[in-house]
Amino acid sequence: MRALRFDRELKLIDDEPIPSLPGESLVRVLHAGICNTDLEITRGYAGFTGIPGHEFVGIVAESRNGSIVGKRVVGEINAGCGRCPDCRSGDQRHCLFRTVLGIKNRSGAFAEFLSLPDENLIEVPDSISNLEAVFVEPLAAACRILNQVDISASSNVAVVGDGKLAQLIIMVLRSTGCRLTVLGKHEPKLELASKSGALAIKIHPAGVALPHLPAELAGERFDVVVEASGSPAGLELGLNLVRPRGVLVLKSTHHGLATLDTSLVVVNEVIIVGSRCGLLAEAIELLSKRQVDVKPLVTRCMPLSDWETAFAEAASPSSLKIVLDISQVA
Amino acid sequence: MRALRFDRELKLIDDEPIPSLPGESLVRVLHAGICNTDLEITRGYAGFTGIPGHEFVGIVAESRNGSIVGKRVVGEINAGCGRCPDCRSGDQRHCLFRTVLGIKNRSGAFAEFLSLPDENLIEVPDSISNLEAVFVEPLAAACRILNQVDISASSNVAVVGDGKLAQLIIMVLRSTGCRLTVLGKHEPKLELASKSGALAIKIHPAGVALPHLPAELAGERFDVVVEASGSPAGLELGLNLVRPRGVLVLKSTHHGLATLDTSLVVVNEVIIVGSRCGLLAEAIELLSKRQVDVKPLVTRCMPLSDWETAFAEAASPSSLKIVLDISQVA
Repeated sequence: MRALRFDRELKLIDDEPIPSLPGESLVRVLHAGICNTDLEITRGYAGFTGIPGHEFVGIVAESRNGSIVGKRVVGEINAGCGRCPDCRSGDQRHCLFRTVLGIKNRSGAFAEFLSLPDENLIEVPDSISNLEAVFVEPLAAACRILNQVDISASSNVAVVGDGKLAQLIIMVLRSTGCRLTVLGKHEPKLELASKSGALAIKIHPAGVALPHLPAELAGERFDVVVEASGSPAGLELGLNLVRPRGVLVLKSTHHGLATLDTSLVVVNEVIIVGSRCGLLAEAIELLSKRQVDVKPLVTRCMPLSDWETAFAEAASPSSLKIVLDISQVA
Repeated sequence: MRALRFDRELKLIDDEPIPSLPGESLVRVLHAGICNTDLEITRGYAGFTGIPGHEFVGIVAESRNGSIVGKRVVGEINAGCGRCPDCRSGDQRHCLFRTVLGIKNRSGAFAEFLSLPDENLIEVPDSISNLEAVFVEPLAAACRILNQVDISASSNVAVVGDGKLAQLIIMVLRSTGCRLTVLGKHEPKLELASKSGALAIKIHPAGVALPHLPAELAGERFDVVVEASGSPAGLELGLNLVRPRGVLVLKSTHHGLATLDTSLVVVNEVIIVGSRCGLLAEAIELLSKRQVDVKPLVTRCMPLSDWETAFAEAASPSSLKIVLDISQVA
């Protein structure tokens, strides 16, 4: 099959073997989104070698479970050992022995076919298009914040970042009715955030330290700040925006270390919450009930053969989501 | 009055004016402990200039409130504005306009006299000696962890650090019945931790990165890790010791930045909790009920005139608490 493979560099391979894992389902990939984590993988993040890609929609091609063959599905990307306490409790997202689609010891979605355990696959309602379904995984990651942090209509919340994950987070947070401020560097993305009902503030592109913050924010401190900028500098900004005893949610994964003024964390008794994968069912519900509209986040959809342009555009500050159309592979 | 003053360097001053703040009580200091924060202040922490010192016991010399004159007291070190929502709720520890004894815009305890609002002073029961009373403030800071994090007999907890604050934390955590492991670099301090009922493990003095961790800890991950080493490197170690979805409590304040692998925080959904001042009443209760014994933590008590030796010894890795006896100032 055709697949994008990363091994020190990204390459399109024509003769990648079709994955065949005992007891799992084989999914023919229709569309797959390029996530910042995929870009970070090409920079060395997680030390991953293989086929990246974890945001997808596809059709079940083969399965022991005949009832799902031919169904259009998305997939939980964490595949646990099935035996540890986490897995037995029904949550494989933190299984120490897990594989993760396109991120950890498991071939991903930038390929004609992928393999996942049957129980990881969830059927997509007809009301959700392929391009929308590609957002189920990152939208679930945005929803995860509300499982972890108490945010209500009376909360004053800031999001640092205006990229594709930040935009999904903004949509999810707006559903709580909270007061929402977004700090970003890109005019069109900030406009999109405004349309989602957030107060959008442009920060100085060269620096995110407090002296560069716009006057509108002088003295303002937030109950909750979500760092979704994908930049190590976002942590420092977030820490300076959160009120004493407030919560700073970290959503970005990137290669490399950030610096942290731990004394500020201690003195202000800030709570920093790492936040990763959510439940796909929550995202499917938001999409099928039309509570969020992800279509404006698609910058471009292009065939797998155009992967080089796709990855270059995905890395461009002016892009939001770039989707690979893999159904066109002949 | 005689006082230790820090202004780029620490000096003993003979003619420091006695503090006189309208509406506050004047306290004659008997004993004052040297805390790591005091050492950090002499390295530039918090940009403080003035008289440091915030762990003390003294006698009320003057007060509008006649009933407390002559009483032996300890003091809440945060003095709030009295008007903000925090202060009105009775908790001035996070008032944005607060002064903090010997740390922020308020002269501290390394002096013959200090000034604090009446309501900050708490009488010390006769059963608690002066040397024990000096520990009320840091012991309350240790107690603060249990206000913030759920720790029970079934919790597996690690403390990074074996210094004076770490030892108080160990004593407080042991009161929960939790399984407790202490990672430190100093044999005698680790022995003391063992006596408090913790499993003590010596870590490689040169590095705290995981490859240097002793074999006993291979694969072990803790529900809660408390970073109390006073070293920026303790953050990295703590982050590698905490289990997925576990809690890393930060207790150390120090001058300078730490590095943080934010992706590890995100992927493991770690919760980092900054933890500072506690309620003095909780510490007084532990001491008066003899639930903790702080006496073994006193390395030496010496007169204010020996401040140079005292500060040098306080900074020595082999020392625990150095107490200044200020009652001897003639």
